Amino acid sequence: MQNFKAYVLIFLLIPFSMFAEDGSQLWLRFPNVKNGISADKIISKGNNPTIEIAKNELTNFWQGQTVELRTDKALKNQKDGYTIKSSSDKITISSSKEIGLLYGVYHILRLQQTKSNINNLNITEKPSYDVRILNHWDNLDGTIERGYAGYSLWKWEDLPNKISPRYKEYARANASIGINSVVLNNVNASPNILRKDYLDKVKVLADIFRPYGIKVYLSVNFASPKVLSGLENSDPLNKNVQKWWKDKASEIYQTIPDFGGFLVKANSEGQPGPQDYGRTHADGANMMADALKPYGGNIMWRAFVYSPSKEDRAKQAYLEFVPLDGKFRDNVIVQIKNGPIDFQPREAFNPLFGALKKTPEMVEFQITQEYLGFSNHLAFLAPLFKEVLDSDTYSDGKGSTIAKLTDGTLRKNKFTAISAVANIGEDKNWTGHHFAQANWYAFGRLAWNHSLSSEQIADEWIKMTFTDNQDFVKPVKDIMLTSRESVVDYMMPLGLHHIFASGHHYGPEPWGDYKGGRPDWSPVYYHQANEKGIGFDRTKSGSNAVSQYFPPLDELYGNIKTTPENLILWFHHVPWDYKMKDGKMLWEELAYKYDSGVKNVREYQKTWDKMQTYVDSERFAHVQSRLKIQTKDAVWWKDACLLYFQQFSKQPIPYDIERPVHELEDLKKIKLNMGHHN
Amino acid sequence: MQNFKAYVLIFLLIPFSMFAEDGSQLWLRFPNVKNGISADKIISKGNNPTIEIAKNELTNFWQGQTVELRTDKALKNQKDGYTIKSSSDKITISSSKEIGLLYGVYHILRLQQTKSNINNLNITEKPSYDVRILNHWDNLDGTIERGYAGYSLWKWEDLPNKISPRYKEYARANASIGINSVVLNNVNASPNILRKDYLDKVKVLADIFRPYGIKVYLSVNFASPKVLSGLENSDPLNKNVQKWWKDKASEIYQTIPDFGGFLVKANSEGQPGPQDYGRTHADGANMMADALKPYGGNIMWRAFVYSPSKEDRAKQAYLEFVPLDGKFRDNVIVQIKNGPIDFQPREAFNPLFGALKKTPEMVEFQITQEYLGFSNHLAFLAPLFKEVLDSDTYSDGKGSTIAKLTDGTLRKNKFTAISAVANIGEDKNWTGHHFAQANWYAFGRLAWNHSLSSEQIADEWIKMTFTDNQDFVKPVKDIMLTSRESVVDYMMPLGLHHIFASGHHYGPEPWGDYKGGRPDWSPVYYHQANEKGIGFDRTKSGSNAVSQYFPPLDELYGNIKTTPENLILWFHHVPWDYKMKDGKMLWEELAYKYDSGVKNVREYQKTWDKMQTYVDSERFAHVQSRLKIQTKDAVWWKDACLLYFQQFSKQPIPYDIERPVHELEDLKKIKLNMGHHN
Repeated sequence: MQNFKAYVLIFLLIPFSMFAEDGSQLWLRFPNVKNGISADKIISKGNNPTIEIAKNELTNFWQGQTVELRTDKALKNQKDGYTIKSSSDKITISSSKEIGLLYGVYHILRLQQTKSNINNLNITEKPSYDVRILNHWDNLDGTIERGYAGYSLWKWEDLPNKISPRYKEYARANASIGINSVVLNNVNASPNILRKDYLDKVKVLADIFRPYGIKVYLSVNFASPKVLSGLENSDPLNKNVQKWWKDKASEIYQTIPDFGGFLVKANSEGQPGPQDYGRTHADGANMMADALKPYGGNIMWRAFVYSPSKEDRAKQAYLEFVPLDGKFRDNVIVQIKNGPIDFQPREAFNPLFGALKKTPEMVEFQITQEYLGFSNHLAFLAPLFKEVLDSDTYSDGKGSTIAKLTDGTLRKNKFTAISAVANIGEDKNWTGHHFAQANWYAFGRLAWNHSLSSEQIADEWIKMTFTDNQDFVKPVKDIMLTSRESVVDYMMPLGLHHIFASGHHYGPEPWGDYKGGRPDWSPVYYHQANEKGIGFDRTKSGSNAVSQYFPPLDELYGNIKTTPENLILWFHHVPWDYKMKDGKMLWEELAYKYDSGVKNVREYQKTWDKMQTYVDSERFAHVQSRLKIQTKDAVWWKDACLLYFQQFSKQPIPYDIERPVHELEDLKKIKLNMGHHN
Repeated sequence: MQNFKAYVLIFLLIPFSMFAEDGSQLWLRFPNVKNGISADKIISKGNNPTIEIAKNELTNFWQGQTVELRTDKALKNQKDGYTIKSSSDKITISSSKEIGLLYGVYHILRLQQTKSNINNLNITEKPSYDVRILNHWDNLDGTIERGYAGYSLWKWEDLPNKISPRYKEYARANASIGINSVVLNNVNASPNILRKDYLDKVKVLADIFRPYGIKVYLSVNFASPKVLSGLENSDPLNKNVQKWWKDKASEIYQTIPDFGGFLVKANSEGQPGPQDYGRTHADGANMMADALKPYGGNIMWRAFVYSPSKEDRAKQAYLEFVPLDGKFRDNVIVQIKNGPIDFQPREAFNPLFGALKKTPEMVEFQITQEYLGFSNHLAFLAPLFKEVLDSDTYSDGKGSTIAKLTDGTLRKNKFTAISAVANIGEDKNWTGHHFAQANWYAFGRLAWNHSLSSEQIADEWIKMTFTDNQDFVKPVKDIMLTSRESVVDYMMPLGLHHIFASGHHYGPEPWGDYKGGRPDWSPVYYHQANEKGIGFDRTKSGSNAVSQYFPPLDELYGNIKTTPENLILWFHHVPWDYKMKDGKMLWEELAYKYDSGVKNVREYQKTWDKMQTYVDSERFAHVQSRLKIQTKDAVWWKDACLLYFQQFSKQPIPYDIERPVHELEDLKKIKLNMGHHN
């Protein structure tokens, strides 16, 4: 009865104590702050739009001592980093650049939001990467490829005249986590983006972003000269084509003097490219690099290529790019997806990392959850990003992690960069799922400092976005930190990959076998299940993809006994009765993994429901609703995969796990119309 | 690994050791019997079609000693009962009637199937009821009202010329469990059933059923004289009408000399009846009774009536019939549904039982699962039937159970009867769900002997239908014996009732509130949930339905403290924070009940999956598939009811139970098309 009264009280109080929130404030949330310090408590010299933004943030939100903003050229080695020193009555933020001062302001605001100590600070920050860039896969018609948070933020039809207030909010959010570059449009690029009228629109965005330290990049279509200007071709060795790009560069930089550069998807999945003319990726990239070079622009050339050959798709980027090593200009950087297939819930890292000894490399992550349940599933991706960055390639001996290969530690490149495909759309809460905001946040924070732990990032984000009450922070952090592994468990445990439904990549379709199409577009190609076992043999007896890894990884992955079990089906075709390290046979292990994924999500639901009193009702209900979908989807995945694979294993699903509630034949009939996601 | 090998072995062996079965054999299953004893080991005198059937069963299936079939007029008091006496070399079955001998043969076959001892038998059996009757709600167009096993067995268009082999199989199955009467057609009766051409069809069925001891009854439409013959009305006091029925009776008995009689639904749910002419149910019933009397026919007059008045529907049958007590002919029996509403998963018993002191009463059960998940849910109904029969009405003092009131023990009526609405259709397995066969079986067995326990009936049925292996019998019996309570738990625990979706009665619709219609056709009328509590107040402060019960039940049900908790919401509007006997408050108790229902069904799935090696693959897969549906439906029920009632209780669902996976608003949109069930 005591409890009952407490419940009733809680229900009665909720409408009064909580105000509805729609998530639009992201992590820049100051619920109890009416205003910050007065302007006379801010010490700074000179006038600059970036400094003005910093001052506004302080007068709006800063509750602490006097703040001095000090530009200091001596700090040039920190790049756009900064130092923060404080006593109880003053904080001094120093940087060689104004943007560093703004970053410093966001830093102290974060300390305030997370209730950290702000006295006796002695902080020195230097970013891990020079270019910290979001890739928007936004189309000019307003749709977003693999976007699950509504239509594009960029209102191309309204630009350049009508300005959405969200452009500035977007820039501010990025600046607050150190993101300093954005590619505005889809890598499957429309040539039109380079038209004069579109460049005028781009200029508006660039002007809005500039004070927030953000440079604009564009994805370009390799066939642009031919398509836009009727040139005879777009051959990179054609002088007319070269001239076209040089003229276009000149035009762009007249409009946007600090334009960042191009992102290029060429000769990949039907996109045009230099190979259309018998040229190499280097030929194509260098032509563009030469055009942008006078203005300081960069080319990010994607390594995501795979031709319709019989070769294991996982090997193809390596096979195409390694022969080109050393042939790229110094303002070209090769942008490599974290794994050799395509943003799966878990992949082995891409063996191309470290293999290009004389060519700068950068990572491409995916924040948008194309293969992780769209904006319906809660999956905190910092652990995925960290897993990749911390992977040791052994390219330059032990300790050659992908982080160190790409951040300038091991390779002295002209510049360093890290990218991720954004999950941002016009939804009020920006990312569809409230918790998907954390993935935008996590990418920014790791791009700034890849040594941050996932736990630390989650901790900050929760406190800033919701509350610092430990009764909320702890259980919710537990959800976040285990969530990506749960998704792996209920979708594709033990190294399984790409058994998604065709096209939309939402639900399971392990039975997918698209006759007449490319084998490597069919799930059965990837799981290779038969009566003997399951998994893709990438050892010497199979595709020998393991040979692309540096010693000792080639041996380690080539041997089933030394392969990490979370990748065992990535590298091996494993017998159903193979004995796993915990003593279970493979079939059982697989079943328990799927079940574990479902169980975890059911637990997330319980945990979240208990959080009701700590969250505003609007976000509470939204997340609660998405978790219901996640649970149903987890059961769907588990049933589909276990019932399908059981046809080969011919063994019962262990009897202590929750039974399937679906019929395999019914699941096979599901054809989702996913058009509504845009 | 040991286990693994065992699994593989099992999977390899299944195809060879089991033969596929479709359930068409019901409980008359003799899988390892090629033939029975030779004809010369059967001792019997005279020739009779019923004796021939008995002999055939013995020569086909009986594996034991010599059998003597002995008619013995001295056993007349046993009615169609029998005695069985045996030594190791001979069994003697005696009865005053040939049908008693056939029942005795099915008895010893059951002993053989259940591996019981057949030596030194000394059995005396006498049926609990004279008339043990199935009510088929089959329409003349082949559909079945509330039928979930396909279309009707009766092929009216083919009759009288084309004879389905299933007519005889049906009669045999009924005879094997002692059912001796059937109503062929729906109580919402077409007048056409009394047309000459239909009576000729009925005659064919009656001729087939006769050797199996089965009499045919018909449901008749009270307006038949007017509709069929153009009489000015169907007023029971109209001499022309009376003559019409007498002529019709004569016609019927010329065609079917042992015709059983009429079942009548009058002035109920729109059906015509004597009240259309200002006459009483007694006037109507007696007119028909007089017509059939010369031929020994009976009238079963249904008490299922409720008018569109403001009076609590649960009170109306009592209010209409008690004033008529003593006014019915002695060949009229009032057929009363077990509960005062309508075959709910659990109801309080109908207070009309015992209230008619001078009028014979009989129970109407429902075998078909109109309100228990159709043929998708496994719900063994013997415990429901027993619960009703064992209910003490206190009408004639303590111990006045419904069984004793209706079986002749307390009231010396001309004849006794018990009825149930059949669940039989043309599906190969007869009843849709294999386990629904057990409900047909259980009704027959209890109609024969209402002192049998549910456990005993389940035990017999499992052994006869599947296997006598205790590793199968025990767990499956556990499922069966708990199944009805599980359905109550996930649908309508604690006395909740009639919160089904409108019309088809399959899924939940507690929000149902059909404006403009009768209030008592809306779920909200029955659950009465509001911010204070939930339940229908039938005490003095409410409808005072409790006053229809004999002391001390009126007081016991009128007091919330003494009302059995499994009926608490049937009789009381209970505050959400009411403290239940286990210390939980009502809201929690409700939530845990729903959860318990879901959990149980999930456990049934596990148990059944473990039974795979003991069952043929066809029935295994069929039951497995239905259990999946049952689990999904149980979750649907739980989510719908808890999320809906939570709007009133305003309390959290206890956090240790599985969370909802549905949105209330989505569930409200579900509109099932249930047409396919016929």
